[in-house]
Amino acid sequence: RIMRPDDANVAGNVHGGTILKMIEEAGAIISTRHCNSQAGEPCVAALARVERTDFLSPVCIGEVANVSAEITYTSRHSVEVQVNVMSENILTGAKKVTNKATLWYVPLSLKNVNKVLEVPPIQYARKEQEDEGKKRYEEQKLDRLETKQRNGDLIFPIINPEPHTVGYSQSSLIHLVGPSDCTLLGFVHGGVTMKLMDEVAGIVAARHCKTNIVTASVDAINFHEKIKKGSVITISGRMTFTSNKSMEIEVFVDADPFVDEPRERYRAVSAFFTYVSLSKEGKPLPVPQLLTETEDEKRRFEEGKGRYLQTKAKRQAQMQQAAQQ
Amino acid sequence: RIMRPDDANVAGNVHGGTILKMIEEAGAIISTRHCNSQAGEPCVAALARVERTDFLSPVCIGEVANVSAEITYTSRHSVEVQVNVMSENILTGAKKVTNKATLWYVPLSLKNVNKVLEVPPIQYARKEQEDEGKKRYEEQKLDRLETKQRNGDLIFPIINPEPHTVGYSQSSLIHLVGPSDCTLLGFVHGGVTMKLMDEVAGIVAARHCKTNIVTASVDAINFHEKIKKGSVITISGRMTFTSNKSMEIEVFVDADPFVDEPRERYRAVSAFFTYVSLSKEGKPLPVPQLLTETEDEKRRFEEGKGRYLQTKAKRQAQMQQAAQQ
Amino acid sequence: RIMRPDDANVAGNVHGGTILKMIEEAGAIISTRHCNSQAGEPCVAALARVERTDFLSPVCIGEVANVSAEITYTSRHSVEVQVNVMSENILTGAKKVTNKATLWYVPLSLKNVNKVLEVPPIQYARKEQEDEGKKRYEEQKLDRLETKQRNGDLIFPIINPEPHTVGYSQSSLIHLVGPSDCTLLGFVHGGVTMKLMDEVAGIVAARHCKTNIVTASVDAINFHEKIKKGSVITISGRMTFTSNKSMEIEVFVDADPFVDEPRERYRAVSAFFTYVSLSKEGKPLPVPQLLTETEDEKRRFEEGKGRYLQTKAKRQAQMQQAAQQ
Repeated sequence: RIMRPDDANVAGNVHGGTILKMIEEAGAIISTRHCNSQAGEPCVAALARVERTDFLSPVCIGEVANVSAEITYTSRHSVEVQVNVMSENILTGAKKVTNKATLWYVPLSLKNVNKVLEVPPIQYARKEQEDEGKKRYEEQKLDRLETKQRNGDLIFPIINPEPHTVGYSQSSLIHLVGPSDCTLLGFVHGGVTMKLMDEVAGIVAARHCKTNIVTASVDAINFHEKIKKGSVITISGRMTFTSNKSMEIEVFVDADPFVDEPRERYRAVSAFFTYVSLSKEGKPLPVPQLLTETEDEKRRFEEGKGRYLQTKAKRQAQMQQAAQQ
Repeated sequence: RIMRPDDANVAGNVHGGTILKMIEEAGAIISTRHCNSQAGEPCVAALARVERTDFLSPVCIGEVANVSAEITYTSRHSVEVQVNVMSENILTGAKKVTNKATLWYVPLSLKNVNKVLEVPPIQYARKEQEDEGKKRYEEQKLDRLETKQRNGDLIFPIINPEPHTVGYSQSSLIHLVGPSDCTLLGFVHGGVTMKLMDEVAGIVAARHCKTNIVTASVDAINFHEKIKKGSVITISGRMTFTSNKSMEIEVFVDADPFVDEPRERYRAVSAFFTYVSLSKEGKPLPVPQLLTETEDEKRRFEEGKGRYLQTKAKRQAQMQQAAQQ
Repeated sequence: RIMRPDDANVAGNVHGGTILKMIEEAGAIISTRHCNSQAGEPCVAALARVERTDFLSPVCIGEVANVSAEITYTSRHSVEVQVNVMSENILTGAKKVTNKATLWYVPLSLKNVNKVLEVPPIQYARKEQEDEGKKRYEEQKLDRLETKQRNGDLIFPIINPEPHTVGYSQSSLIHLVGPSDCTLLGFVHGGVTMKLMDEVAGIVAARHCKTNIVTASVDAINFHEKIKKGSVITISGRMTFTSNKSMEIEVFVDADPFVDEPRERYRAVSAFFTYVSLSKEGKPLPVPQLLTETEDEKRRFEEGKGRYLQTKAKRQAQMQQAAQQ
């Protein structure tokens, strides 16, 4: 679809969140279609996890985003979908790869939302494809268990914070979940949640460096808990780490099913977003260093540094591998 | 894309206007891409005309609409695009043809919006294709001239009208044209206008028969005048004709470029929509006859009857032809 | 949330209606949460009244609006909420108070929409807070009774009106109430209605003075009647009074529950909006005087003048009080 002014920031770059939402919609369509391809109980595919995603090049207003999706692995109860986004300038004809994302879906019965159904297996062209898929499946399963632990954290407001401290840029947003945010089962689309998360992360980044910013990547996101129509969701973001040219922001989503439900507020999703700061000409700018004050902030900064170095090392290894081929 | 609750009426049927908007977006993308495919002045394709469109089967919330577009003819200054819409129930896998629409676009220079550029010619597989396209081109050109005449009409409000009269159901809507409604040139997308026209026509139809209604077809629409960002547009609709099971509604779009422009209000578009009334089970219901009072209303009723009988005759001829093959 | 291009007019100022909608959403969330805080019948808080609201400074595209809400009084069946809106320019860090609004909500049972439930009492820090709240409660109750009387008025269209007459700028808009406009109970959010009212008032103001205009204040609005999903609402506005630098516009909302309901069209809401005209540099411009023709128009002009002088006197008294402290 054509990118509109409302999809973009003041500098005309389309928000990462808009792209994430389109990716998720494509993933939800292909996996729901696949899971209903054999006679049996009708179901809706619910997003369980998005793998780490890099935004390779910014998209601008007026460009057309082409989204294509393919099922690359199925386990007994889950589907792996690969989604590619190309942006196309229809005036010049230029095309660029914007994103490659991997998403995991789980089929939930339309009659009983707590029942996970079986996934029809796909055919693999080669045996190795199945083995590689299985390896990815095991890895993400392990990773999901890990992040579940981290999910207890809270963000408290700080009064009169100094510039460049964590408290100075931290932000939160509340949203009342309406019908258009939801699937046929009455639960929030994963893509809607990701769009809101990106919005908060973007505000945190802009508050920190007071320049035009764009999403560079999103760490793996796990959707542990469903969010029901009519809930109020609070999306909070705080900066955890800065390198010379990037910022890492942790985002939490808490749901409050306050009508018709005896349930307490709960943590539904959390994730790390990485942003870069851009000059008016679109060149990367240096980022002011994050000032950490408490022990927790210092610990999170070190953890962020660890993730940053790990990603950097991984990327260098990939580039060397590519160079050798 | 997946159809959402907001795309549909209370009975769950997607508004014809949502479909028309998707069709036009697809047409604008493919024709803008084609017109920029050769080095030269960059341009944006502007909608000039939509041929008569039948809504063959209703689309429901939760279904996926698949839109495909193809360029079928080019004249020196215009492009004919054929757009097909299929709706797919991703739970059952059932697919249905929803629409086949033909649209005409004209390339306008990005630097000078009043300059119409030349269209790169397409290659035809067979000579007959080009001849048939040329015939369609000549026909629509003639038809555009004709409707331009009709465009002087105005709708005056009636005080305390009786049920089933023209004055009882006539309705109008104003809309302030925002950035998201517009192309890169700062003029309203044809699809946005058509969506608003369908909205008004639907309200007229519902006011007349007080039941659930759906768009059955849209007569050819000509876009004589561009509408600029920041304009206020008034969309007015009045019923012109009823058969046993259908209603014809005439819709006018008037634009008022009131900020920063010396220009008077002008008629930008007009068209005829046909609606049918449906029971809760989705079966067509009889429509209360339209009560005509003035001479003009009686004349328009007879003209509507003429269009209705002509369309009916054409459809029967097509069915006989199909039966003979 | 970040203000988008579609939230704003051509000059980049965010529509008052967008702010009103955000205020109401915050009020609805906090009061629904409070009314469900004790075990008992689940309920949804419905907007009953908004007190007079001044727009203290315009908000621009790209700024972040921070909305905070607090419950300031509870009677047996109603909740008073105070909402503050700050706009923040995240590039410069500058913050401004945009709005302070007071809203009244009533808890309606989720099982039976016609049943008003009891509100859990809040604790007051000081006895005077309770007394002051009670006084505000009594005042608004009285005022609600009064405005109910006024609600019989109708707007009739005028043919070929002269510039600067009432008939020249009066406007009306119809809107089909969709799912996203509604609460869990299936009734229109008060904020959605206010946004549409501001849209019509803005068009009336722009038609009168043909310049860029912004909302300066909204008089108290009472929501006497609920509006159901699937209704068609007609929002009509007419100018009632002009001072040298401001315009007062009266706006009516009529609902037509035409599908599946035997009920006649009814007046749901009415209110007065005040607008000012701005030059390209954002300075207030003189407003052309409203030409009144009929007796009713002259009477309404005098009434508007009364409200204008009263508000002016009140503001001067407040400023003197502030100066003495």
